[in-house]
Amino acid sequence: MADDHVQSSGRMQAYSDAIFSIVATIMILPVAHTEIPKDKNLREVIFYQLLPKILIYILSFFVVAISWSAHVWLFQIIRHADDVTTLLNLLIMMIITFLPFTFTLMGTFPEFVLAIVLFSVCIIVLGLVQALVVLHVFRNPQTMEESIRSSENMTAVRNALLLRVLVNAILCTFAAVFAPVTSVISYVFLVMILLSPNIAVQLSKLISKCSGGRFQMSQEVVRRGKSYEMEVNKERVECYSDGVFAIVATLIILDICEKDIPSRTALKYEYKNDLVAALDHDSSVFLAYFGTFATVGLLWYIHHSLYHHLKRTSRLMTMFNNFSLAMIGGMPLAFKLTSLYNDTDFYNNERVAIQLSCVIMFLASISQLAIFVTALFRPEQDLTDSVKVGGQSHYYLLVKLLVYPTVSITIYIISLTSDVLSVESFHVAQLGTPVLFFILWLIAVKIQVGFKPFRDINMMYNPIIQLLSVNCDFQAVCVTINNIYIQFMIYCN
Amino acid sequence: MADDHVQSSGRMQAYSDAIFSIVATIMILPVAHTEIPKDKNLREVIFYQLLPKILIYILSFFVVAISWSAHVWLFQIIRHADDVTTLLNLLIMMIITFLPFTFTLMGTFPEFVLAIVLFSVCIIVLGLVQALVVLHVFRNPQTMEESIRSSENMTAVRNALLLRVLVNAILCTFAAVFAPVTSVISYVFLVMILLSPNIAVQLSKLISKCSGGRFQMSQEVVRRGKSYEMEVNKERVECYSDGVFAIVATLIILDICEKDIPSRTALKYEYKNDLVAALDHDSSVFLAYFGTFATVGLLWYIHHSLYHHLKRTSRLMTMFNNFSLAMIGGMPLAFKLTSLYNDTDFYNNERVAIQLSCVIMFLASISQLAIFVTALFRPEQDLTDSVKVGGQSHYYLLVKLLVYPTVSITIYIISLTSDVLSVESFHVAQLGTPVLFFILWLIAVKIQVGFKPFRDINMMYNPIIQLLSVNCDFQAVCVTINNIYIQFMIYCN
Repeated sequence: MADDHVQSSGRMQAYSDAIFSIVATIMILPVAHTEIPKDKNLREVIFYQLLPKILIYILSFFVVAISWSAHVWLFQIIRHADDVTTLLNLLIMMIITFLPFTFTLMGTFPEFVLAIVLFSVCIIVLGLVQALVVLHVFRNPQTMEESIRSSENMTAVRNALLLRVLVNAILCTFAAVFAPVTSVISYVFLVMILLSPNIAVQLSKLISKCSGGRFQMSQEVVRRGKSYEMEVNKERVECYSDGVFAIVATLIILDICEKDIPSRTALKYEYKNDLVAALDHDSSVFLAYFGTFATVGLLWYIHHSLYHHLKRTSRLMTMFNNFSLAMIGGMPLAFKLTSLYNDTDFYNNERVAIQLSCVIMFLASISQLAIFVTALFRPEQDLTDSVKVGGQSHYYLLVKLLVYPTVSITIYIISLTSDVLSVESFHVAQLGTPVLFFILWLIAVKIQVGFKPFRDINMMYNPIIQLLSVNCDFQAVCVTINNIYIQFMIYCN
Repeated sequence: MADDHVQSSGRMQAYSDAIFSIVATIMILPVAHTEIPKDKNLREVIFYQLLPKILIYILSFFVVAISWSAHVWLFQIIRHADDVTTLLNLLIMMIITFLPFTFTLMGTFPEFVLAIVLFSVCIIVLGLVQALVVLHVFRNPQTMEESIRSSENMTAVRNALLLRVLVNAILCTFAAVFAPVTSVISYVFLVMILLSPNIAVQLSKLISKCSGGRFQMSQEVVRRGKSYEMEVNKERVECYSDGVFAIVATLIILDICEKDIPSRTALKYEYKNDLVAALDHDSSVFLAYFGTFATVGLLWYIHHSLYHHLKRTSRLMTMFNNFSLAMIGGMPLAFKLTSLYNDTDFYNNERVAIQLSCVIMFLASISQLAIFVTALFRPEQDLTDSVKVGGQSHYYLLVKLLVYPTVSITIYIISLTSDVLSVESFHVAQLGTPVLFFILWLIAVKIQVGFKPFRDINMMYNPIIQLLSVNCDFQAVCVTINNIYIQFMIYCN
């Protein structure tokens, strides 16, 4: 085979990342485009009309993210992609792009057999095509990564890979089979997709035990697979995240283009050809747009600063990142609700819209902080020197990560206790946040001296972190967040 | 200044590319979402209703592409981006994302002063922010590219850069000033934006001549600027193109999700709760979707194969690429029209829709071929060895590039001469094209021998190319395309 037809796989992966991220994010549109009557209680609308749709959005976001991470894992074995791999990857992308349709169908008609079967068939075909990629790559070892090619037991690696890409297909086969009987069991199998990486590992152990070594998926191979998955390629996480951030900003302007430009007839009869008056009627939309863009842009900026200082990313960090991205994907909904209500009403809907936006902003930003906290437990492997505890930029990054949680909590509390908050002032606050970051930059980079006295805190800070690292579980993470929060309060006074 | 706060600028550029490409592409939606009455003559609808919108789409696509190439040019001087540059870049992105709104407004109300002024103000602010970036970078030389920092005359480089980013702002100032007088002059200035790279070069010559050296923008500097622009960063072209390809595929499924899933009430009363019947009613949409995705995916695949073999890209090649991308952005329109008509009617609208799709496919693919032909004029600088005339993969790439022009012309001619063609068979043909590429791969890579006899053609092929290179102008390009076509006919027989 001519080596010339074998192309570096980087661009194919970047293209796949872009499609995955767009597909995951546009699933918010059925939620954001829900008709909301202006004269109803928004709190009730959220609970009865929006919440089921939001849950399906989050579920579908994670299913796409799981498929994406399986794709990352699969293509990490490929060093160069030949034409067949590229064409098979396009087929995978075709199926992925079709997923939003099956999701929307399932969201609208959850109890219909056809909806469940259609989704299942998509995932089964996806698994089969991925299996084809695995078989093709193992028949053409010159396209593989050096470390896999030089492995002693290539067949065992191949079997473990095949099992990994086929687990979702197996789960969906069960879901499709049970669909005519009862949809509840089907949904149990579908939700199990979220756990598929773990199921694959357990299953491979079981198979190699039961078959007595005939199907070789030895512990050694599984561990290799595991370690591959532990370190999700950082560049691909960045690429995927960039896609989500980019499409969110554009989805909002798309809505404005389609809905807030009056037609020529409306302009003639309603506004007497006065374009200024017609646009002024929707002026709150523009403030909402710029405010939302500022938030999305700055969350990207924080993400960028954080990932610049990460040396590698674990599965837990990628999970936090996916949750953060799912929340950022919810920003078009926040935009819609805050631009819908522009004067006080009986139900205080304006305040509820602001509160929902704050919840979204808080969850998105606190998950970013969680990534950093997770990395702090293994600073040697995960972080660059300058952001380790005691490092030159440690506090600067920490404060950056704390800005949005603090801002969103503050606004939320204000909205609970007082009536002064309007959507206008909320959007102005969103637009003002960049100034905070500029001031931070002035203090940290230009003046610098302001951050030095606080280095003494490390005397107490360091041992706490080390103590916590001993039992690194969820409780510990909570304690650390609390601890960091206390540090921040000391800082401020 | 701490060097630690300075981050590599790669990710910021990739994120910007994603936003630019999405913004350029979603401008097709006002065209694709135009209400088309099913019982009217499609040919008339295209000429009177769609054509003006299509022209505005192409104009806006190119304005965004020009802004993108100015962005590429500006950020090529930056090696590492500090926080201020990153925040200023986010501001640039905010303005870019707002452009679709001003475009749609201008498209709907072309004669209104406000529409012209709003667009102009956006471009003016864009220019000013870019000028701020230039000033900031030149005040912090450690963030600059080595080659610029070591230049003898940094002030002159800065002046040339400032002029380049401010030219569009100057043009738009004139457009805004003339808008209240007459909109025609304004539009002349706005169209001049498309020529702004050349205007900047001419203007800088003029200024340094007139000021007698006080404003130093010497020829040497201009040439430096020019050579920077001649070689548009290949990675960024790929990134931008990937964004367009990815968003086009997703825009189509977005439409299906919003329009072709029946509501619960419609299902109950119209289809008596029979979901299969409800979806079957729209079954032509799914065939159209898979057919269109196959086309977009394969055009990406050809683009990928082509750019893999390019060593650098000139401005002319980028222009062809932009035109190709603008046409690919038109695929959602082709999808909409071909899925609208699913049975024969009085006006033969079905055939017109197929013909329009063929025109779009032909223009998109022939521009890709034009990139390769342009590169053939300077093979030493532009191409890798294997695709030069006589190289191992030359014919393989050439045939790949010729598949879509040939297929679309063939379908167009069939649709002119016979009645057998329906949209169904058109979409089946689209879905069948991947098989062609697979057969090509079998011949070229697996069998190989099939391509060897044709190497003798190089005896006559080579001198023709060399002869043409002497006067490399538009006519020569045409002759070469014709020549390649003749080669292809020899090939086939």
